[in-house]
Amino acid sequence: MGKHYLLNLYDCSFVLLNDELCLIQLLESAATASGATVVQTISKKFEPQGVTVICLLSESHISIHTWPEEGKAAVDVYTCGDCDPKIGCDMIIEQLHSNNHTLSYIER
Amino acid sequence: MGKHYLLNLYDCSFVLLNDELCLIQLLESAATASGATVVQTISKKFEPQGVTVICLLSESHISIHTWPEEGKAAVDVYTCGDCDPKIGCDMIIEQLHSNNHTLSYIER
Repeated sequence: MGKHYLLNLYDCSFVLLNDELCLIQLLESAATASGATVVQTISKKFEPQGVTVICLLSESHISIHTWPEEGKAAVDVYTCGDCDPKIGCDMIIEQLHSNNHTLSYIER
Repeated sequence: MGKHYLLNLYDCSFVLLNDELCLIQLLESAATASGATVVQTISKKFEPQGVTVICLLSESHISIHTWPEEGKAAVDVYTCGDCDPKIGCDMIIEQLHSNNHTLSYIER
């Protein structure tokens, strides 16, 4: 039922992790780079900080939840079909300038 | 960064897995039963069959992707804070009458 990467990011900047628009653009770009099609994107900016972005894809979903005050984010890139979700993970790791991350792969 | 259950369901009925409204109600009920708060729900009915439902929660997200023609569904119940996402998983397993499932737990 697809390829699912669970990516935990640490030591990221507060500003990046709290920028809702930036994170929407990043997730949509990562989905497209993985070969997926974005059907709909929703997001929520929490108070006093923190952002969630979720893209519903034709091929499953991609999501990010951030804790800017701790420099942490949890990302899921889950796709079925011929996509390569690892490409999206690599883009997110690079663009959030994470100094430390864990990446787990699960075949669904 | 929270508790994440990855639930794969097999041998489910075509009709249940292709019922978008039913799946929306099920996911929202499962989220609430887990102690989470639904911020927004989005869904997509695919042609010729298949449904995706994703709820953005105050405490992360819950999602389902279905392949009715194969009797399969992939569910994620991911929550932070004091929620108990296992309760939501049990509700989904029961209400989709799955005869066969796998459940993986990941501490994010």
